[in-house]
Amino acid sequence: MSSIYKDLKQECYEANMQLNALGLVIYTFGNVSAVDRTKGVFAIKPSGVPYELLKPEDIVILDFDANVIEGTMRPSSDTKTHAYLYKNWNDIGGIAHTHATYSVAWAQSLLDIPIFGTTHADHLTADIPCASPISDELIKGNYEHNTGIQILDCFKNKGLSHKEIEMVLIGNHGPFTWGKDASKAVYNSKVLEVVAQMAYLTLQINPNALRLKDSLIKKHYERKHGKDSYYGQ
Amino acid sequence: MSSIYKDLKQECYEANMQLNALGLVIYTFGNVSAVDRTKGVFAIKPSGVPYELLKPEDIVILDFDANVIEGTMRPSSDTKTHAYLYKNWNDIGGIAHTHATYSVAWAQSLLDIPIFGTTHADHLTADIPCASPISDELIKGNYEHNTGIQILDCFKNKGLSHKEIEMVLIGNHGPFTWGKDASKAVYNSKVLEVVAQMAYLTLQINPNALRLKDSLIKKHYERKHGKDSYYGQ
Amino acid sequence: MSSIYKDLKQECYEANMQLNALGLVIYTFGNVSAVDRTKGVFAIKPSGVPYELLKPEDIVILDFDANVIEGTMRPSSDTKTHAYLYKNWNDIGGIAHTHATYSVAWAQSLLDIPIFGTTHADHLTADIPCASPISDELIKGNYEHNTGIQILDCFKNKGLSHKEIEMVLIGNHGPFTWGKDASKAVYNSKVLEVVAQMAYLTLQINPNALRLKDSLIKKHYERKHGKDSYYGQ
Amino acid sequence: MSSIYKDLKQECYEANMQLNALGLVIYTFGNVSAVDRTKGVFAIKPSGVPYELLKPEDIVILDFDANVIEGTMRPSSDTKTHAYLYKNWNDIGGIAHTHATYSVAWAQSLLDIPIFGTTHADHLTADIPCASPISDELIKGNYEHNTGIQILDCFKNKGLSHKEIEMVLIGNHGPFTWGKDASKAVYNSKVLEVVAQMAYLTLQINPNALRLKDSLIKKHYERKHGKDSYYGQ
Repeated sequence: MSSIYKDLKQECYEANMQLNALGLVIYTFGNVSAVDRTKGVFAIKPSGVPYELLKPEDIVILDFDANVIEGTMRPSSDTKTHAYLYKNWNDIGGIAHTHATYSVAWAQSLLDIPIFGTTHADHLTADIPCASPISDELIKGNYEHNTGIQILDCFKNKGLSHKEIEMVLIGNHGPFTWGKDASKAVYNSKVLEVVAQMAYLTLQINPNALRLKDSLIKKHYERKHGKDSYYGQ
Repeated sequence: MSSIYKDLKQECYEANMQLNALGLVIYTFGNVSAVDRTKGVFAIKPSGVPYELLKPEDIVILDFDANVIEGTMRPSSDTKTHAYLYKNWNDIGGIAHTHATYSVAWAQSLLDIPIFGTTHADHLTADIPCASPISDELIKGNYEHNTGIQILDCFKNKGLSHKEIEMVLIGNHGPFTWGKDASKAVYNSKVLEVVAQMAYLTLQINPNALRLKDSLIKKHYERKHGKDSYYGQ
Repeated sequence: MSSIYKDLKQECYEANMQLNALGLVIYTFGNVSAVDRTKGVFAIKPSGVPYELLKPEDIVILDFDANVIEGTMRPSSDTKTHAYLYKNWNDIGGIAHTHATYSVAWAQSLLDIPIFGTTHADHLTADIPCASPISDELIKGNYEHNTGIQILDCFKNKGLSHKEIEMVLIGNHGPFTWGKDASKAVYNSKVLEVVAQMAYLTLQINPNALRLKDSLIKKHYERKHGKDSYYGQ
Repeated sequence: MSSIYKDLKQECYEANMQLNALGLVIYTFGNVSAVDRTKGVFAIKPSGVPYELLKPEDIVILDFDANVIEGTMRPSSDTKTHAYLYKNWNDIGGIAHTHATYSVAWAQSLLDIPIFGTTHADHLTADIPCASPISDELIKGNYEHNTGIQILDCFKNKGLSHKEIEMVLIGNHGPFTWGKDASKAVYNSKVLEVVAQMAYLTLQINPNALRLKDSLIKKHYERKHGKDSYYGQ
């Protein structure tokens, strides 16, 4: 019963449970994966299993072409999107997907989330991109694989870097977030949801609210992420 | 004290408690029923009993004409609506009714909930129907029985199938949901509330938000419910 | 240390704690009182005491002219409003006052809460009245006593009965609710807050939403409160 | 391991934990400090330490020029703002900073929060000021120190007293609050968040809602804070 993927499964399991504890998912509306670059595999939540029943040993292990390597359960229905991102972005370590309320509302609005304040700028320096709804051509094909294509196209077309912007809204669907590991991907899902709610409220209070000015965007991002950063320990 | 309906009462009791745990009801603002087709009866919450005091043995058993078969308490005031639906839709196994906040707000707005995204399309392929307020003629008669008529009329007039769309808003009142069993009916009440909140927020962010395109509606529904579905275990 | 008001203090204490458990107050933003008509006194929360520190023996006993009969602590700053209502409405048994969010938002908007649906009609048959802001003349005098006058004037001017409508919004301030006992007054505060949120959301979704029609208002109220009521046990 | 600042660290630690318990912060999005005027130092949360890991001995002690006096961890990145306020306002005992949702939404809207009701007037007699976004000149310099300048400039330009108004919104950023001690500063952060939500909802319900009239502002403030105040024990 021992597995060389035991630690990876545990990391993946804990990140999935964190998603639930943070109030970002109900029922089975979300999934988190974690990668092991050395072994060339990632671990992901099984499809349709409620969080209260999930166990570390249920986690499924796959390679970057979405072939199952270990596990008896069917992996998340979004698995091919995860695989595609891991294959193309070889510096990310974890991915999270949710149907969190405010993030979905912006995705359904087909609008980027404007950068209105420092809570946003502490994490990224651009509006949070909303990828256009997937084309009919891509829906007909390998849908979840093509959602990965849709994300990369969005970043290419908008000239964005996935290292600086670790989140995206899929138009009419919901958010995907990523990071150096699964826990950071979950953290980014929470930050996105909070920033999405703040931006929504800002526009309700002041429909003419202006984006944060560039000098302040730069300052806040750099104090947390720049070479002379002085945030954290 | 033993009863041939013990298991049915227990199923009904647990589904009612689930409704409460999911934050869909306060006080006595809701009720769930469960059917036993073989015995030709259904079980429902007693009227006006708070969830913290409810016990499995309080559950009332009735036939499909709303005659009490077993139980000393008065059944939910909405019992005749449940009976009418069980009698006319012989393939449903459970029904739930709530006054959940966002569902009620749409019902009070007398508007269908537009299908804006995949969270909605994962569960049904149409807008969530809002039945017109009950006519004065039907109010004067057998009100709760006639609410059942109102629901069936709504589905007939809009050309909808209750097998594909397991939820309805009663105009000026609130939601009824159903499913293969009581637990699924409660699940549908939660999904409806979440989708109702997302649709509300979507229209606040973008009053011109468009309905999801047909190709994507079809894809999401089929990957969960179609003959080649690949969601779940 | 024994007191002839022990039971009354206990009832008042429990109702105050309920207010807090229902999420209707933070810090010391609310108070509940309970009456003993036989003894001609009422019990009320002491002023400025946080709920987590409140003890049954802290409750203050007063007569209907707001003279302290028993208790070493200063009573709630709203005490004279309670006293005035008990003196003038000799059939009420409990009063609650909160600064609950949605109730206050309507009070600050100086608008009655329109009766949009059956959740509202299950409890009262009219819009929830908002009393005009207190006049400068009344502010200068005995302010809290005059808030009582303001409430009675509102009911008189609008032709309302406090037996049928157990709640009011004080313009620019917040809600007062009452009932046959303290627990019912707290129940009414919760119902008001829920109805206030539903009405707010209804107008956000459909600014042209119509009030519930009279026939349905009457039906819902009577099935719970009429002479042939069939709600509850 | 004993420290002459042990009590101060404990006060600071408890106030930070309170901020978290009140739902005003997620992750590390906030900080509270507490002053000891006799010793000429203040205690503040270390930077980037999650609340669930924070320990009293992690708290950092600094003088009013933001020099570390005791502690091995790096202090909050907002430390210089705290230091500047303590140095210039020698009668305050604690400061709190959060990214609470509704407070941030108003800050991002660059609008003062209008005084719409008595919940607001119970705490301060003016609109809650929103300081204009920091100038490019000040961003380039000593940013957090200059945020302190920004706050004092705001109070000077608007003719406000920090003794009467213990809170401010930093445009595009979020709230700072203060008080006689750290616990009162946290209390003010919570009050601000509640008042911010109420004002938001008021304007959604009635875009033409009027500010509270002066006579009522005065009355409510004085019954809690005036020389003849009769609120509390």
